[in-house]
Amino acid sequence: MAASQLINASLQPILDGDRLALARLITQVENGTPQGRLALSQLFPATGRAHLIGVTGPPGTGKSSLVNQLARYYRQPADGEAPRRVGIVAVDPSSPFTGGAILGDRVRMRDLAGDPGVFIRSMASRGSLGGLARATAGVVQALDAAGFELILIETVGAGQAEVDIASLAHTTLVVEAPGMGDDIQAIKAGILEIADILVVNKADRPGAEATERALRGMLQLGHPTPHVFRHHGQLERVFPGEEEPAAELKPAGETPLWIPPILRTVATEGTGVPELAQAIARHVCHLRETGDWQRRERTRLQSELDSLLQESLVNRWRGSVSEASYHQVLQDLVERQISPWRAVSILLDGGV
Amino acid sequence: MAASQLINASLQPILDGDRLALARLITQVENGTPQGRLALSQLFPATGRAHLIGVTGPPGTGKSSLVNQLARYYRQPADGEAPRRVGIVAVDPSSPFTGGAILGDRVRMRDLAGDPGVFIRSMASRGSLGGLARATAGVVQALDAAGFELILIETVGAGQAEVDIASLAHTTLVVEAPGMGDDIQAIKAGILEIADILVVNKADRPGAEATERALRGMLQLGHPTPHVFRHHGQLERVFPGEEEPAAELKPAGETPLWIPPILRTVATEGTGVPELAQAIARHVCHLRETGDWQRRERTRLQSELDSLLQESLVNRWRGSVSEASYHQVLQDLVERQISPWRAVSILLDGGV
Repeated sequence: MAASQLINASLQPILDGDRLALARLITQVENGTPQGRLALSQLFPATGRAHLIGVTGPPGTGKSSLVNQLARYYRQPADGEAPRRVGIVAVDPSSPFTGGAILGDRVRMRDLAGDPGVFIRSMASRGSLGGLARATAGVVQALDAAGFELILIETVGAGQAEVDIASLAHTTLVVEAPGMGDDIQAIKAGILEIADILVVNKADRPGAEATERALRGMLQLGHPTPHVFRHHGQLERVFPGEEEPAAELKPAGETPLWIPPILRTVATEGTGVPELAQAIARHVCHLRETGDWQRRERTRLQSELDSLLQESLVNRWRGSVSEASYHQVLQDLVERQISPWRAVSILLDGGV
Repeated sequence: MAASQLINASLQPILDGDRLALARLITQVENGTPQGRLALSQLFPATGRAHLIGVTGPPGTGKSSLVNQLARYYRQPADGEAPRRVGIVAVDPSSPFTGGAILGDRVRMRDLAGDPGVFIRSMASRGSLGGLARATAGVVQALDAAGFELILIETVGAGQAEVDIASLAHTTLVVEAPGMGDDIQAIKAGILEIADILVVNKADRPGAEATERALRGMLQLGHPTPHVFRHHGQLERVFPGEEEPAAELKPAGETPLWIPPILRTVATEGTGVPELAQAIARHVCHLRETGDWQRRERTRLQSELDSLLQESLVNRWRGSVSEASYHQVLQDLVERQISPWRAVSILLDGGV
């Protein structure tokens, strides 16, 4: 029995790709309504098919244009491949006064408007980051259930927040641009750790060479190339500086390691985009061959489970304590009569 | 009875400013040890005296140099003021391979080394952002208890993460630099919302004018200048576009509103630093006069309380469930036998 047969009939329009039904569901998911949650639960068996591609990097590197061009490419791929359905989720964890996200949408609309094979959603939030990450996961699930084969998750910024949101993805692109590499902090090493593919966008600008060199340098620091040996049929890695391999270790014919490639693009002109799409396709093959795809799925679902557990535990506890007691404890804390840990102990155990 | 008299005698060295004792406590707080937690609880009555100053903004704007120069200034203030003790907490939410934070410390050391009135701590983390924010709050409390009068909390980056960490502060400086203002996303509107003072650093570079103009434009979008009236002794604000004020409203002599000033600095040369220190001092007066100081203290302590409550609830629950049941549920989730919400319900209620 196909997964979709188990799903409530009222959700059939979403499985059939009805855009209005999907847009309504996504709004409910964003607003965290019980209906949205129920629908996602019921659609869950139909998810897990999409390839999730995270796109992150510092502001000003042209991520939106690149995402646009990738979406275009997947709709009209080279060498006779079939066009694929593309979802775009643009997440801005900082809340703009001016509706930057909406503006971004308008720019995109001009390119991709009217194509039923593309669905774009911008998300911004004044609320908690955790809430935004959860909502993003939900929106991605909805698009997955609706049959979008590639989902591009774009995050603005370069902090841990963006790393967390990007960690939803199977493949993560980190986008840099020339002229941001002259500062020790400009290329954030933390974000390189999550990069599967590095992109130097705006590569027609002066300094593209230097940016690529800086990225390569940091990559080598972070991922020293190991020697790979086959040992009783198992692949083993020996990193430079580690002890010498035992004599029975034989160099393996092929390495299952993924060394993040560095690609140059000029997104505004589409330059380098087919090559980027090829690198993404190679990464999917790598994930499938090594079992990393399953490992990433597990990590992703575990982090979603943990975050839902945390939310439920807090909500249940909040339902069990009166506003008055909470505010009395907070007042004592503000007056420094009690410490924060004492306040927790009073609220959870009645001060025992 | 002074607060300090209530504190365990073993913690006296910290109250007396013993640097080694303080460094040990801070390490325990960073590592989240029970001793660290207990010591912070006991020291809590001695906290609440320091002025916490958050310094945030995009990478490459020279925040570290600016923090350095501010610390220097407070140690040797102009016009006969007494030097004040300064703590610096540098937080990098993205984890560098290369120990960028440590390098930053070395650069600082040259300037401020050997001054017992300055204490510097860099924090970076591969763990969760929430954990880092909590540890930062703890380190700030330790410095506060140890009598540091000004605590500069520097965060690298410009995302929600940094906003959360900066929200620890009474006064938040947002630092920009010329040449980052030509991109719609480069000046993050979200971060302007938390700015009490805006700084255009590297103001000797071309484009300082344009950056200041862009900031001013975004500020005016976000904070349209209201007309302030006195109504039955109460101050009322009427924003442009809102309905006209009633006839009995009279323009007030003074406004309690804080319009974030924009200052230019060249931190590497110390230019503009005394003026920045004056703006910070004016902001403290404003906070004290309007009661905003108390409101910020309450908000800060409430968010600390909520985060500790959440941590405790999750830890308690984890202690109550077996690893085996958790992993069985996770496995069913990965195989898409059950949805994430169903998994939560099974784990919390045994699937009822």
